[in-house]
Amino acid sequence: MVVILYLIVLFDLLPEFYYNCGNVSINKEVTMIIIMERNATEENIQTVVDLLELHEFKVLVKQGDVHTVIDALGDKTTLSPGRIEALDGVKQIKFIREPFRLASRDRKPEDTVIEFSNGVKIGGANRPVSMVGPCSVEEDYEGLLEVAQAAKELGCQFLRGGAFKPRTSPYDFDGLGEKALQYLAKAREATGLLVVTELMDSADLDLVCHYADVIQIGARNMQNFKLLKSVGKCNKPVILKRGAASTIREFLLAAEHIMYNGNEQVILCERGLKSFDSAFTRNLLDISAVPVIKKYSHLPIIVDPSHGTGQRYLIEPMAKAGLVVGADGVMVEVHHNPSQALSDGKQSLSIPQFKEVFTRLNSLIDTLHLEKSAPVLSVE
Amino acid sequence: MVVILYLIVLFDLLPEFYYNCGNVSINKEVTMIIIMERNATEENIQTVVDLLELHEFKVLVKQGDVHTVIDALGDKTTLSPGRIEALDGVKQIKFIREPFRLASRDRKPEDTVIEFSNGVKIGGANRPVSMVGPCSVEEDYEGLLEVAQAAKELGCQFLRGGAFKPRTSPYDFDGLGEKALQYLAKAREATGLLVVTELMDSADLDLVCHYADVIQIGARNMQNFKLLKSVGKCNKPVILKRGAASTIREFLLAAEHIMYNGNEQVILCERGLKSFDSAFTRNLLDISAVPVIKKYSHLPIIVDPSHGTGQRYLIEPMAKAGLVVGADGVMVEVHHNPSQALSDGKQSLSIPQFKEVFTRLNSLIDTLHLEKSAPVLSVE
Amino acid sequence: MVVILYLIVLFDLLPEFYYNCGNVSINKEVTMIIIMERNATEENIQTVVDLLELHEFKVLVKQGDVHTVIDALGDKTTLSPGRIEALDGVKQIKFIREPFRLASRDRKPEDTVIEFSNGVKIGGANRPVSMVGPCSVEEDYEGLLEVAQAAKELGCQFLRGGAFKPRTSPYDFDGLGEKALQYLAKAREATGLLVVTELMDSADLDLVCHYADVIQIGARNMQNFKLLKSVGKCNKPVILKRGAASTIREFLLAAEHIMYNGNEQVILCERGLKSFDSAFTRNLLDISAVPVIKKYSHLPIIVDPSHGTGQRYLIEPMAKAGLVVGADGVMVEVHHNPSQALSDGKQSLSIPQFKEVFTRLNSLIDTLHLEKSAPVLSVE
Amino acid sequence: MVVILYLIVLFDLLPEFYYNCGNVSINKEVTMIIIMERNATEENIQTVVDLLELHEFKVLVKQGDVHTVIDALGDKTTLSPGRIEALDGVKQIKFIREPFRLASRDRKPEDTVIEFSNGVKIGGANRPVSMVGPCSVEEDYEGLLEVAQAAKELGCQFLRGGAFKPRTSPYDFDGLGEKALQYLAKAREATGLLVVTELMDSADLDLVCHYADVIQIGARNMQNFKLLKSVGKCNKPVILKRGAASTIREFLLAAEHIMYNGNEQVILCERGLKSFDSAFTRNLLDISAVPVIKKYSHLPIIVDPSHGTGQRYLIEPMAKAGLVVGADGVMVEVHHNPSQALSDGKQSLSIPQFKEVFTRLNSLIDTLHLEKSAPVLSVE
Repeated sequence: MVVILYLIVLFDLLPEFYYNCGNVSINKEVTMIIIMERNATEENIQTVVDLLELHEFKVLVKQGDVHTVIDALGDKTTLSPGRIEALDGVKQIKFIREPFRLASRDRKPEDTVIEFSNGVKIGGANRPVSMVGPCSVEEDYEGLLEVAQAAKELGCQFLRGGAFKPRTSPYDFDGLGEKALQYLAKAREATGLLVVTELMDSADLDLVCHYADVIQIGARNMQNFKLLKSVGKCNKPVILKRGAASTIREFLLAAEHIMYNGNEQVILCERGLKSFDSAFTRNLLDISAVPVIKKYSHLPIIVDPSHGTGQRYLIEPMAKAGLVVGADGVMVEVHHNPSQALSDGKQSLSIPQFKEVFTRLNSLIDTLHLEKSAPVLSVE
Repeated sequence: MVVILYLIVLFDLLPEFYYNCGNVSINKEVTMIIIMERNATEENIQTVVDLLELHEFKVLVKQGDVHTVIDALGDKTTLSPGRIEALDGVKQIKFIREPFRLASRDRKPEDTVIEFSNGVKIGGANRPVSMVGPCSVEEDYEGLLEVAQAAKELGCQFLRGGAFKPRTSPYDFDGLGEKALQYLAKAREATGLLVVTELMDSADLDLVCHYADVIQIGARNMQNFKLLKSVGKCNKPVILKRGAASTIREFLLAAEHIMYNGNEQVILCERGLKSFDSAFTRNLLDISAVPVIKKYSHLPIIVDPSHGTGQRYLIEPMAKAGLVVGADGVMVEVHHNPSQALSDGKQSLSIPQFKEVFTRLNSLIDTLHLEKSAPVLSVE
Repeated sequence: MVVILYLIVLFDLLPEFYYNCGNVSINKEVTMIIIMERNATEENIQTVVDLLELHEFKVLVKQGDVHTVIDALGDKTTLSPGRIEALDGVKQIKFIREPFRLASRDRKPEDTVIEFSNGVKIGGANRPVSMVGPCSVEEDYEGLLEVAQAAKELGCQFLRGGAFKPRTSPYDFDGLGEKALQYLAKAREATGLLVVTELMDSADLDLVCHYADVIQIGARNMQNFKLLKSVGKCNKPVILKRGAASTIREFLLAAEHIMYNGNEQVILCERGLKSFDSAFTRNLLDISAVPVIKKYSHLPIIVDPSHGTGQRYLIEPMAKAGLVVGADGVMVEVHHNPSQALSDGKQSLSIPQFKEVFTRLNSLIDTLHLEKSAPVLSVE
Repeated sequence: MVVILYLIVLFDLLPEFYYNCGNVSINKEVTMIIIMERNATEENIQTVVDLLELHEFKVLVKQGDVHTVIDALGDKTTLSPGRIEALDGVKQIKFIREPFRLASRDRKPEDTVIEFSNGVKIGGANRPVSMVGPCSVEEDYEGLLEVAQAAKELGCQFLRGGAFKPRTSPYDFDGLGEKALQYLAKAREATGLLVVTELMDSADLDLVCHYADVIQIGARNMQNFKLLKSVGKCNKPVILKRGAASTIREFLLAAEHIMYNGNEQVILCERGLKSFDSAFTRNLLDISAVPVIKKYSHLPIIVDPSHGTGQRYLIEPMAKAGLVVGADGVMVEVHHNPSQALSDGKQSLSIPQFKEVFTRLNSLIDTLHLEKSAPVLSVE
């Protein structure tokens, strides 16, 4: 009798989800699979089924001698997976569909391109961009201007600099605040570069938006959801840096927070992970994250070899590595006098070093841009 | 000539820092050692010496055929180590003294004890405390009250519950806000339990302070320095959760941020680290962090086996593990109906489970408390 | 037409794997789920189906608008999952059943107990055992004997000591070889303790088997499969240490290698993981691995707080932590003169410290043993 | 009196290690710094000094109000640092000189170049090499030959293939043994390619040496010191793969083991680290390890993007990343029919994919080779 019940269910489902079913319109698919514990009772299984059905999932239960497996067909955003995990007898949930939606290439196969009022574009087949400048903006405006002018001459598009700085120790310099923003705006006026600066607190949103062309969310704030929500509601492009211990999935879910709140102009930035080996580098720059994210998301992604390694001599090779794997740009710390920099001097280039390195980087970028314009078929 | 200069420096320093120098008052010591690169020039070395001396460090330079090593004697809070690292030819800085000061047991050898108006104490030889309650406070006040009443009966001291919830996905429930705070306050009135709740944004500081007895800073915000600063300026005890990829040093520096801003009532909380193995547990609870932190800091520390493992069946064993190594308390998620919990049900105890587990935990706590009152000499 | 084919397959499968199917004998179940890439072609899907069917899996294909999902029912040991992963269009395989079989509690619900000729037992409800001794056996036999005698007096059951030592640097002491084995045997004769020593090379198997009561496989050799195979073929119990970066699944698969080759007397040993924080401890001892492994495997497991932390002062608290979560024993380094130890002195107890620590540990072990004999129902 | 003693010591040392001391010959330098615990006694300090002096170190003790710091000048290979760490009152040892010597660029500033009888060279300014072939050699010799011929045509220099395979699960295919070696030799005869194959057990050394041109030590055996010793005593070049959780320092110390035993022909290979994120890649390929190792060691280093990522589509971008940062070669898995490969098919290229990818890689290699021949000054 029960068999018959399930046959009916199956017949009902068949047109929707079995292979080679012809030209039937499919609007539901298996999105989660729930694996029950070895000792799960029939009551446990029924409770899972009931919760799923309450949220309009279609359900298929396959009982084994060890594990019972439940397929759920539907849109899991209406039901937090944690709800299911909490049920007695549930061992694990396996997600078939990635939990990020808006950021997913499944939803939007073509690359997202972000365009600025001066015509600069990030993403897609566009020439990779360069964002350079000091870690934090300091009292010496002339120094900042000198960096900006060199950047302009080398064809960079963005001037970066911190006004509010997150610092591990309370004894370190933590930024000039609004004065720094004014300096950046002044340097923009002088050079035409676009301004990138970090927002650390949603209370400063209006202030930062007033001065910045691109708002940066730092790695330590990648899961500061209030902040993500606040930039989601503003209309400026956002650079979202990957947390030092964030998985790619968490990273894309953080982007999802911004997009879900209304702002689709998100530029991802890989800037190095915490690893078990910090003897020679501050972080471990995850170069493979670039092609992985390109495969699963349509958002542009840049790399930051300064934070990513913490070592000046690694900026050039790691910027190149990021670019050859397809990054849409690089962010590099440049200071007019790294020995006097109040923060991150170790990972900053001086102006002569910057010129030397970017002459070589620009030549690589040109080559890569040519290849992008005439893309070859890649190996899937 | 320079040799003579250094001889003078040496003579000057000798009474202060050489071994067995008698009863001379010592107020400076080696706090940093700067190791120069193999190919560092004399000019590089001199630049380091000059910067150190500018910041009133005493300096001792030891040249080798491979590496030159520079001892710096003084108080490094006046000079960010990053400034030195940025100088040409510097390979690495080794810190002799831990960078945290206020949180350090070097500064304050006796345990910090935090006392509440109702007489509850955390830290030192006091009985370990219990903080229990749902991950997030939900619409059903009766459910919350039921948990609070059970907690009261079992001798727990704190009711925990989230009003604002950080969620990895934007599609998950993110808290009831002020209504949740009101519910917590109401349950406090009914039971006499103290209230712990998380602050996620400095904009909500006054609101949360108004209702909470203890303010919690979540793991994802451990390096949200604006937030640390804001709770540093309030007069409520703070539970600071360790970031999932934070070193112990970073954790204590985060506590230092709060203390440096004026609030010395910091309770640390170990809640699990991100590891390469998440097949069976959500995080890797670092039990050894408890005795390590007890050795290097005077602050009280508790453990959270709910977040620390993400698995209900691991709450009891891991709470016990935390307690036997010296934790000053445990924080455990309890929900009146975990299967219906809107968040973290998987790692919450139901009320009957809670009673069962805490009956056993209380018996362990009693034993440990007796031992604490009559401490044995430990192995250093 | 193809639809019909699948209907037939479905009918064939129905009695076996659908929920609530009555009292039908079930001998196959879903063991793997194959998730296809977004852009997988029908040909890709068919190739997967063909390979599965060739290996006698039953197959169920569920096509979605994004991902097609294939359930495979059968015994995956006949087909390496890597074979499937290699097929074009396959995104990922999700395993429903853990890949270890012989080591799994699914196969053998009751605890494995290993019994020695002198009546000592490890595992199950037996009293947790103690294995103590120097990291490496040194020239001074009297020193070793002194440790062994103290161990005997304190009720320990095993004397451990290395004859062949893995050393990170070629400049470090690497063991006395056979002479060490003879010393251990001599100390066994004098005290009645059982001898544990490490095997590093399958060429030494007979030699080590001749002298040892228990053969240890070190963490660095956990995936030295030749070595696992060779101890699989001997009839002595084996202590298998978890690799510093091994997942629990890899750990149990390494045990599976030994068991598959014929030796079921495997004692697991958790000895610390490599983490991003090595400032205060050499490794991060994963205490939660004990209850996790107890849940998924029937094999006994012990903890090694000496290697697990690398710090003498952490041996006692972390041994206690391991014991309260259910470890079947502890392994601790004890040296008659740690300051003169040729290896691992930092993490060894001196004999007086050993007596002090084990007096307290024994009292905890007694309490826990009493509880084990009268077990309470635990929270699943 | 003691003060006087130390003054004498100081005077004695001054010409040797103080800055700007003129043209004195320096043959000793600070190699270790020992930091004492806050509560170390004078006796503790004296014991450290005595041990150091026994091993002919010169010693300088600097007492602080918190930590006493001891400089040790001398050659630490005569004294294992663990011996010092074990002394009571020692908090930590800081190494000034890297523990590897033979592998260090300090000892040998120029690049090591390894030359084969057929004129192929690895390292220095030579053209980066390509090593390709199946993960494991299988029964189908024609398939292997097909790969070898394609490799020859594309200008690759090495044919790789496993005869003995380490497998995480005992249920997986573990290699054909000597037959595989014979196949490789036959393919070498047919194509002129050099043969690379893995040695897993020192018992097979002569066998593998007989057939191979280069012996590979796998990542899981990087710290199998018996194996390192045995290849140290043979006269074939060795590819040493970095362990999945090995630091760069441990990696270079493993190379040191081989070199110390007499074989200086070591080729390092970066092949990916275990990380907290394995959702999209099997390992995290540490691209920055290449330029870091180039800075600290003279040994050649190649990258393996097949194992490094576990994903076919990442082979090309990650090979390029390795090459642009200076790798001396790439190792890539190629199989004549990846869908049928008995191991690692997922991360293997088919022959058509191989041709496509290597056409592009060769063009990058040519460009990089030109740059190598006319090197630019790099940023230190």
